Order: sequence, then structure tokens, then C-alpha cells
Amino acid sequence: MQKVKARTLSGFMELLPRQQQQFERVKSILADTYRRYGFTPLDTPVIESSEVLLAKAGGETEKQIYRFTKGDSDLALRFDLTVPLAKYVALHYNELSFPFRRYQIGKVYRGERAQRGRFREFYQADIDIIGDGRLDIINEAEIPAVIYRTFTGLGLERFRIRVNNRKILNGFYAMLGLTEQSGDIMRTVDKLDKIGPEKVKAILVDDFAVSPANADEILAFIGIRGGNGEVLAALEGYRGRNGTFDQGLDELGTVVKYLGAFGVPEDHFAVDLTIARGLDYYTGTVYETVLLDHPEVGSVCSGGRYDNLAEYYTDKQLPGVGISIGLTRLFYVLQEQGMLNEDLPTAPADVLVLPMTDDLAPAISFATACRDAGVRAQLYTEPKKFKAKMNYADKTGVPFVAFLGEDEVQNGVVSLKDMASGQQEKVALAAAPGWLLERSAARNQGAPIREK
Amino acid sequence: MQKVKARTLSGFMELLPRQQQQFERVKSILADTYRRYGFTPLDTPVIESSEVLLAKAGGETEKQIYRFTKGDSDLALRFDLTVPLAKYVALHYNELSFPFRRYQIGKVYRGERAQRGRFREFYQADIDIIGDGRLDIINEAEIPAVIYRTFTGLGLERFRIRVNNRKILNGFYAMLGLTEQSGDIMRTVDKLDKIGPEKVKAILVDDFAVSPANADEILAFIGIRGGNGEVLAALEGYRGRNGTFDQGLDELGTVVKYLGAFGVPEDHFAVDLTIARGLDYYTGTVYETVLLDHPEVGSVCSGGRYDNLAEYYTDKQLPGVGISIGLTRLFYVLQEQGMLNEDLPTAPADVLVLPMTDDLAPAISFATACRDAGVRAQLYTEPKKFKAKMNYADKTGVPFVAFLGEDEVQNGVVSLKDMASGQQEKVALAAAPGWLLERSAARNQGAPIREK
Repeated sequence: MQKVKARTLSGFMELLPRQQQQFERVKSILADTYRRYGFTPLDTPVIESSEVLLAKAGGETEKQIYRFTKGDSDLALRFDLTVPLAKYVALHYNELSFPFRRYQIGKVYRGERAQRGRFREFYQADIDIIGDGRLDIINEAEIPAVIYRTFTGLGLERFRIRVNNRKILNGFYAMLGLTEQSGDIMRTVDKLDKIGPEKVKAILVDDFAVSPANADEILAFIGIRGGNGEVLAALEGYRGRNGTFDQGLDELGTVVKYLGAFGVPEDHFAVDLTIARGLDYYTGTVYETVLLDHPEVGSVCSGGRYDNLAEYYTDKQLPGVGISIGLTRLFYVLQEQGMLNEDLPTAPADVLVLPMTDDLAPAISFATACRDAGVRAQLYTEPKKFKAKMNYADKTGVPFVAFLGEDEVQNGVVSLKDMASGQQEKVALAAAPGWLLERSAARNQGAPIREK
Repeated sequence: MQKVKARTLSGFMELLPRQQQQFERVKSILADTYRRYGFTPLDTPVIESSEVLLAKAGGETEKQIYRFTKGDSDLALRFDLTVPLAKYVALHYNELSFPFRRYQIGKVYRGERAQRGRFREFYQADIDIIGDGRLDIINEAEIPAVIYRTFTGLGLERFRIRVNNRKILNGFYAMLGLTEQSGDIMRTVDKLDKIGPEKVKAILVDDFAVSPANADEILAFIGIRGGNGEVLAALEGYRGRNGTFDQGLDELGTVVKYLGAFGVPEDHFAVDLTIARGLDYYTGTVYETVLLDHPEVGSVCSGGRYDNLAEYYTDKQLPGVGISIGLTRLFYVLQEQGMLNEDLPTAPADVLVLPMTDDLAPAISFATACRDAGVRAQLYTEPKKFKAKMNYADKTGVPFVAFLGEDEVQNGVVSLKDMASGQQEKVALAAAPGWLLERSAARNQGAPIREK
């Protein structure tokens, strides 16, 4: 028979079993944390009508979309989880209770140029809180807590949540009479770290007709640094000149005020006036999260407050706040950096049961008892040499092997070998599942990520 | 702004939050059960190259496939999880340990005619055990145990696993010299329940040139009924006439022999000579699972033993055995039949925390303490009337509401209301998370499906 060469498309992550176990662990910590904060799971279709999915899209995004026809239907694969959420909330508005808090962890598709570490199919892990008409600022204050618990849950300590408020930025530029140019200015200011203040000033003055005095004000404003208290105090100096600015400052103050009650340590949180996130969409608090030892990765969890989730589908005013983690890329980076905790078991089972008798019933019954007790048990009955069996145990990384020979069966015991220590002991059959459960639980202690 | 009508494509299941919670519960029982048997999770791409995905496909399947081009690439969405597994094993052969046991629960795509209860995007939940060159019969004997634990784990009792062996069928037809016609014969015999034995005989004789004597033999064979012991005893009467038949009978005997050790009660298992499953692919044990009170649904979990998983990609002989649950359709049917256990909580949170003071810090700290303890807590801070807040609690179905007023804060307590009983009590702040955790765990006891 002629063969087709087996291959996986480039830009599509396909993990080996051990890596997949690590990925599953990371994914389930995200889901558990989101649930802890009262977010309900959603699972919308991967395929949507192009008309619905592209109601808003344009430019770069549209070019990347997987779009095709099937019969008479013009279809597209979702490129994020926000547009499907907007559709969902508009469509099911009457059946939902607001604020509506949902999480979704699902694959999205973007036909980007293939590149190392860039994926065309990747998981996003999103949470959003949607209000009906209005949404309390406390929801914005709660988001850093979700981010903090998510990342510490993964085992990360060296990260910082950077927060700003778009109203402060918009109000500030309005004070200077630069509302029109504010988009261009923010994009320029974003390059501060790369090109330095002189060049930023030159561009502002030469390209965007900002007066030298205003350019200096902008640089001074963006240069405000310090602890959260210091930054807020500096911002107070601008109060009273613009209503939007003052509102943004109040909101930022509220977010900072409740950090402690939300369990977020000060040093994991920084008010940072340089971050803006996409210019049109966000209208209040904006978030970025950086790994302190890997700033080159960029933000690993971003989002913000928006005013109109579903304006392309409904007249209802649906403000919201949300964040997204690019899970596939994050996992890729952590793996590349060697930060996955290799001490955690990645085997398909906690115990490999090796029958050593002709009648397999005792070994099967033992495996059944293990499973009843919640132990992940694998029976190995292939007629191989003993060495091949132990080699299999080694290669799969199973932590324990159970031997059941005539001797064991007659004495109602099982020989259990700890593959890490090499130690072997005989345990009463009835006690063995508990023995394994306890030790497996101990082996599974610890977070999936380990900082060096 | 002109609006696009929000809609979800027909044939795509999109659940409301409460249903989604039920679906997630069902899905996680499947995953947990599969893991219990030592299957490792896999997550292959939804998109594959058409050349790879369609190496084997043809006819009806090919017509249903979502196939499209992106740039120069001819792509297709997976239509099952078996072809991607075959590709995976062929591609990563050198990095896998055999027997390789994997489970995958993922969405697959088939552009079928839209019809009530038929889905174009649906979850399959598969397990497979792949051998390298050979695979022990015990793996086939283990599959009914996985099916049994999966369905009882879901809360079902009224189901039966029907098992046959293709070698018995092939051997039997070989005995009669009817190997050529065996496909046609099996398809005809399949209609026995619908059209009766006379019509079956007429078709066999008239259309497929089976002698009347052989037609009678076939009807007698297919008519073998009784307990597993009785059927096996009747089959022993045919022993010695065909090697393949004898081998199949030995295999079936082994599968039946170890049922008890695998924890499968006799009455949930039936040797049934009428089932065959797809004619070309399966070569040994075949499985179907029927809901006794809903035979109209057909098999809800099917599969079998095959000899060559990846023959389109590799010369390696990779025999295997696997089963698949059509999860989306199963969930749809259970829901339609009103079999979902409505007593289990479907709210996004275990407790809704309602602050009644201006300073929100005490309520936020309490929510944080709940989350630290593993309680799913939602803060509700929208400035609404008390009645609206309780209405929200009612609508989301949250089991407990926590009130924190001046009084409670001063006394270091929180008022906890059980929404089901209407009872309210004051609990010390430090004890409240434990109080909630215990009661939430109790509410979550029970299986997601309930038979009437």
C-alpha cells in the first residue's frame, strides 16, 4: 500500500505524552482558579458564520482568519474568544443574569506567518465579567486578584501585574488639547524604552505637531515612577483639570485600595502609566502581566475594561472587564526556559501492575481494587521478558510497579516497587491501594512551574 | 451603527451556563475514568493537512468533511479522533512506549444534513490501546470494565455492553463457504429485528445465492441466545471446523472469563452474535453499549479490536483496541429525556457575598478567605436594591448567600443563608469558609445522570 507521510502542520502544537500531562496540569489550574472566583464555564463553537465573526474585524486580523465555504455557508474559525462571547451574550441576553461572569479555555485560529514560538492554533484562557448597562468598579479591582492567584497557583512568584487606567491617559491628553493626536502620541511613547526620551520628543514635535512644552509635559507624566502610593500622589497633582482624568484617578485609587483585601501583595502590582493596550476598545482599567526574569516574552496576561462588548450585534449597553492568557505560547515559553517542574509525575498511571502468574484474575482484581480506590492503575500483560517490562515502566515514568507472583497471591500480599528509590516492599493486598494513593498524592504535591 | 444579527450555526451545540456546568461534569467523569485505567491525555490539532487526514477516507465521510485552502495549503478539520491518532502514532513512533494507551476528548466536524439531535461539531471521547506488532487479548477484556465504570460513574445503571468477536463471524461464514458474501449476509442479518427471519432468509437465498440449508444454519447461529455461559456453550458446538472461529471463541472466552475480576457484573454484559460493527476495520472483539430504556438511541459507546491502526502512514504493524463515546449526542439525548440530575448545583459559585457596608474591605477579605479555602465565591457589589440582589442569587441558583453588614463586621461573624431551605445563621468569620466548603461538598454529592 502506498503510504502518506505522517506530519503535523507547522504552527500547530502537538505534544508528546509527558509534555501533554504537564500542559493539562497547567490548564486545569487555570480552570480551577477561574472557577474559584465565580466564573462559569462556556464552550462556544469553533466555527461561526463569517458575517457574525467578522462584524468588527478588519485589517491584519481579517487577513489571518481561516475562512471558507461549505455548501452555501460562508464560515470562519474563531480567532479569539471575545467575539464569540459578544455574540453569545447578545444572542442569549434574555436567559443570562448580569453581571455575567464566564471563563472559556479554548483553541483559536490565526493564519500567522509560521515562526518559532508562533502558533496558528493556540489556546486562549479568558475571563470576562459583563454588566447590563453598568458594571461596578470593584469588578476591575478584582481582576488583579485572579491574575495573582492564577500565576502563584502555577508556581510563579517573579511576576508583576502592571495596571493603568485609560481615563487617566485620555483625560491627560485632553488637558493638553491633544485628544486628536493621543493615539499617535501613545504609540510613540510606547517606544520610550527602546529609543529614549530625546527621540520620542523629536517625533512628537516633528511628526505630530506637539509643542515642545507639551512634549516635555508628556515625558514628565509618563516618567512618573515609584510605589503605588507615590504614583497616585503624583497623579493627584493633575486633579481638577479634567473630569475624565479625575474619574480615572478615582477608579485607579479604588483598585489600589482594595488590593490587600483581595490578597494581592503590593510588590506584585504596579501602577504603570506607560501601558495603554489597544487604543479603541478599552475604556478604563487596563492590565498587563510580565515575568520579571523574562521581560522579552512580553505580557503573559492582558486585558481591561471596555464599554460595549456587543455593539455590533445589539443596542444593549454591555460594559465589561476581562483578561486573556495565551496559554499555548505561555506553555511553550516556560518549556523553552526549562521551567516545567520535572519532579511531578507525567506517567499515564500511578502504578503498573505486572502479573507473574498464569491465572491473571488476582492481578486484574488488584488493578480493579486500585481503580476503585482512585489510584490510576495500568495492567501490563504483554508476554515480554521481565527486563522489557521494567524497561517499559522506566520509559513511561510510572512511579510504582506492583508484582503479583504465586508467592504474593498465596500470602495475600503484593510487592510494590518504588521506581525512584528502587526500594521494594510487600504490602497486604487490602492495604495496597491506600498505600499507593497516599504516596501518589505526595508525588503530585507541588506546582507545575519552577523558577530557578 | 448597523447591527449584525447574532446567531449560532445550526448543528452546533451552544449551551446556556447551567447546562454547560452539567456538560462539564459529564465530561470530567469521562476523563477521570479514562485516567483511572492508565490512559494518557492527548490533544491533537483540529486542522490537519487534507492529504494526511483523507489518506483513508472515501465515500460518505469525504463528502461531509470541512475542507478548505489557506495560502497554498489544502486543509481539513478532523472528522474523528482515530485518524489523528494513527498519524500521531506513526509520526512519533520512536518516542512512544507500547502498549500506548491514550484518551482524547475533543471536538470533531462533519457537515451532515442539519437535523434535530444531529451535530456538525461534536465531542468524541475516545480511548485506544495500541500495540507494537502485537497486543495481548487482556486489553480487549479490559475495555468492558472501562465502559462499565464510565457509565456507572455517570449515574447510569440500566445499560448493557454487548460484545461479539469478528473472528467468530468470519470463521462461521468460512465454514459455510460463504466468505465472499459474508459482508452482504451480515448486513442482511442486521435487519432481523426489523423484518423477521422469513424475509431475511428470502433475501439471503434470492439476492445472495445462499442455499436454503445454509440460510437456516445462519438463522440458527444468529438466533443463539441466553446467558454468557449458554452462548459460549452453544458456540463450542462449532469448534474444530475453522481455525479463525476457534481463535475467536477462545478470545471471547477470555473476555468473559475475566469480567468478574474486572468488576463488570454479568447482567451488564451480553455476548451478542448479531453485532458486527464496520465490516473492514475491526478484526476481533467488538463492542456496543445500549441504554436499556432507550434502545432507539442506538449504541452510545462502540468500538473494537483492529489490526492496523496506521497502515496508510507506516509499514509498522500497529494493532489496537478502542472505543468511542459520542459525548455531544449522548448529552443531548440525556437532556431530552430529562435524565440530568437537577439537584446538583449549576451556579457559577458556591456562595454569593453581599457587602452591606460602605467600606467593602471586610466583604472582599471574606471572599478572599473563601477562595483560599477552596470555596467558589462571587462578590456582588452592584448598587442594586436588596430584592434585586436576592433575585440575582435565585436566578443563578447559588446555594448560599453571605451577608456582611455593620453588625456582622463588628461581631466578627457573617450571616449565611441557605437558599434552598431559606434558613439563615450567623457563623464566625474564621469558621465560615469551612462551613461553606463542607456544605458545598455535600450538595455536589451524586451523579450527573438520574434514571427514572
